Amino acid sequence: MTKDAETAATLIALERAALDRWGKGEPSGYLEISAPDVTYFDPFLERRLDGLQALSAYYETLRGKVRIDRWQLLDPEVQVCGDVAVLSFRLVSQAGTATMRWNCTEVFRRGPAGWRLIHTHWAVTQSLA
Amino acid sequence: MTKDAETAATLIALERAALDRWGKGEPSGYLEISAPDVTYFDPFLERRLDGLQALSAYYETLRGKVRIDRWQLLDPEVQVCGDVAVLSFRLVSQAGTATMRWNCTEVFRRGPAGWRLIHTHWAVTQSLA
Repeated sequence: MTKDAETAATLIALERAALDRWGKGEPSGYLEISAPDVTYFDPFLERRLDGLQALSAYYETLRGKVRIDRWQLLDPEVQVCGDVAVLSFRLVSQAGTATMRWNCTEVFRRGPAGWRLIHTHWAVTQSLA
Repeated sequence: MTKDAETAATLIALERAALDRWGKGEPSGYLEISAPDVTYFDPFLERRLDGLQALSAYYETLRGKVRIDRWQLLDPEVQVCGDVAVLSFRLVSQAGTATMRWNCTEVFRRGPAGWRLIHTHWAVTQSLA
């Protein structure tokens, strides 16, 4: 594998592991791989969250409340630029009979502790598809 | 101004200039600042577009068809990591009596030609706010 392919595999594995925990109501997977200066968008919030403290406070309100029965991470692409990498993918998540379709962008930065998220953008797409 | 503040001002100005042309039906503003390897999400597409050629083909279908009467770029944040920078902001756009609310992520990479977009993610938020 090339170095960039190794990075891509590493980041997709990080994302899958965090998603797996998220779908069981456990937000710590994402918090553990987010940087102190992470910025965060999702469609349920009126504005962006800035910083790990704000993201942690938000995620704590969701702890134990999220349940995803099945998810598929589709078409992941990783663009590596030195110590920064952009992972983008689509996600189809199912809980009971409800299906949601998402676009997601994850920007990672490599530091002494490894790869950490500096930006997350979740968007719902099904309503407009 | 610090170097990062200068970069932030530069990128916000690039975005504003491209948006201004976009709102007049002119997609070339974005195409001119997009890199050959740009990846692109918006909520109207079933999947991500990969590469400037794919983005250009899509934008050409919209040439002359977009009209935004007024827009406000809100709360821009720029995270600079060497030759990569993440610009995130909200946008409120109005056309006639219709208002749309967006989240946007723009990832720029600096190269010999200047700052170019390597990833764009537009998302609509009003339906879930």
